[in-house]
Amino acid sequence: MAGLTFASLREIFLRLYSRPFAVMKQNKYDEPEFFAAYGRLPRSIYGLAAGLEWTAFRALLPDLRDKRVLDLGCGFGWHCHYAQEHGARTVIGIDLSEKMLERARRTTHSPGIEYHRCAIEDIDFPANQFDVVISSLALHYVEQFELVCRKVHHCLAPNGVFLFSVEHPIFTTLPAQSWFHGEAGERLHWPIDNYQAEGRRRTNWLTENVIKYHRTIATYVNTLIDSHFLIKRLEEPKPSLDTTDPDVQDQSRRPPFLLIAAVKA
Amino acid sequence: MAGLTFASLREIFLRLYSRPFAVMKQNKYDEPEFFAAYGRLPRSIYGLAAGLEWTAFRALLPDLRDKRVLDLGCGFGWHCHYAQEHGARTVIGIDLSEKMLERARRTTHSPGIEYHRCAIEDIDFPANQFDVVISSLALHYVEQFELVCRKVHHCLAPNGVFLFSVEHPIFTTLPAQSWFHGEAGERLHWPIDNYQAEGRRRTNWLTENVIKYHRTIATYVNTLIDSHFLIKRLEEPKPSLDTTDPDVQDQSRRPPFLLIAAVKA
Repeated sequence: MAGLTFASLREIFLRLYSRPFAVMKQNKYDEPEFFAAYGRLPRSIYGLAAGLEWTAFRALLPDLRDKRVLDLGCGFGWHCHYAQEHGARTVIGIDLSEKMLERARRTTHSPGIEYHRCAIEDIDFPANQFDVVISSLALHYVEQFELVCRKVHHCLAPNGVFLFSVEHPIFTTLPAQSWFHGEAGERLHWPIDNYQAEGRRRTNWLTENVIKYHRTIATYVNTLIDSHFLIKRLEEPKPSLDTTDPDVQDQSRRPPFLLIAAVKA
Repeated sequence: MAGLTFASLREIFLRLYSRPFAVMKQNKYDEPEFFAAYGRLPRSIYGLAAGLEWTAFRALLPDLRDKRVLDLGCGFGWHCHYAQEHGARTVIGIDLSEKMLERARRTTHSPGIEYHRCAIEDIDFPANQFDVVISSLALHYVEQFELVCRKVHHCLAPNGVFLFSVEHPIFTTLPAQSWFHGEAGERLHWPIDNYQAEGRRRTNWLTENVIKYHRTIATYVNTLIDSHFLIKRLEEPKPSLDTTDPDVQDQSRRPPFLLIAAVKA
């Protein structure tokens, strides 16, 4: 133990703890119960057309022909498959969940698509590698949005497009993520509170204890601008499904999703 | 009556009715009861510093030295006065209310400021006449936001700034504009409903029957973009007043104001 002075111990301590703390990332989609419940959602069974925000998302996609596309949080690979079918030159889908990727490889496999296991915040692609980066309903699981914006800006080519959807801040502000009900169980209205308190929300969605991150609209927009993106479009779409299902119709009473298309300036 | 054929009558009819219908504009601020109540608000008595959003608004203002400034809905003229004090070359304030202008001329008069009576939608300035156009909590009274954006873009010089605050869409979506209260009268949460139904809201604010216009955040942002503005900043500020007043503190529970700074591209 010769040489382990107080000064050297202090040095070791500082080296260890001055590193940025690794952020623990929840991998809910690899939990069997959650994965099974997710697999029963209409969008898991029927694909993109069953997503209430798909029509709005598709309208914001650029022409994908001959483009290099990255999908952050690719899940079952529906968007990768769409990009590949619409002429993308290369498609890379990343996801933290091995189960999701296994399903993506099985059902939406194609020679033009690569699937990699990686957390969204951990991507490490070279500069100018992609023309289009998309992310569908994944970034509200990510704590470090600013880091993601910086990395996406880095790996996008000039004039490249970053298009994403997230749960709307009106939707994420309260952990219950639920209507306020009247005595007869009717949906009276959607409650808002603690809007300015950004950060972790422990929600119950499909299963208990699903960690999401609430950010204000201002944070989404200004973080993109600070990361040198131009805002091209912001959408809070109504459900695009033509249905008499009251659960779907009620989605028009408050916006469930926020979509932003931005361009690398 | 010779010559008044069916064809000529039809011509007269078409000429009359093919003109765009004039939109009736409510002039609540000239109603004595409303004007008196408005005069009792902290921001009417103490000026800009008493506005919960003023710190955020001021932070978005460009350097005003030697700038030509237009204020849409100038009210008591506080913002005009601020611009003039901070070196603006010329300042024009417009408002629909004669009472507001009379008060502005009396209390914030200066040789560098002109006050004109005009509805915001009716401005008709030549191209490139202003460097900065501001509007504080007025545009939610205006039905035709797209028309205003077009006119502001026209009268701004290239790289000119359009900065405005409005009541936040979370605030305007329900006409009651009120907290949902518990049985003991406590503020349980802020209710949201009918968010997608843009348009007229008959609210009670200071007096009964105050017409405001609800627009989604997407509409504010995309209308600016479609009018060839670049979005520079979007803010949903917390109250900037340091106070223990629970009414003010509760303003942090949901955003009362939306601020957008845009630049003529």
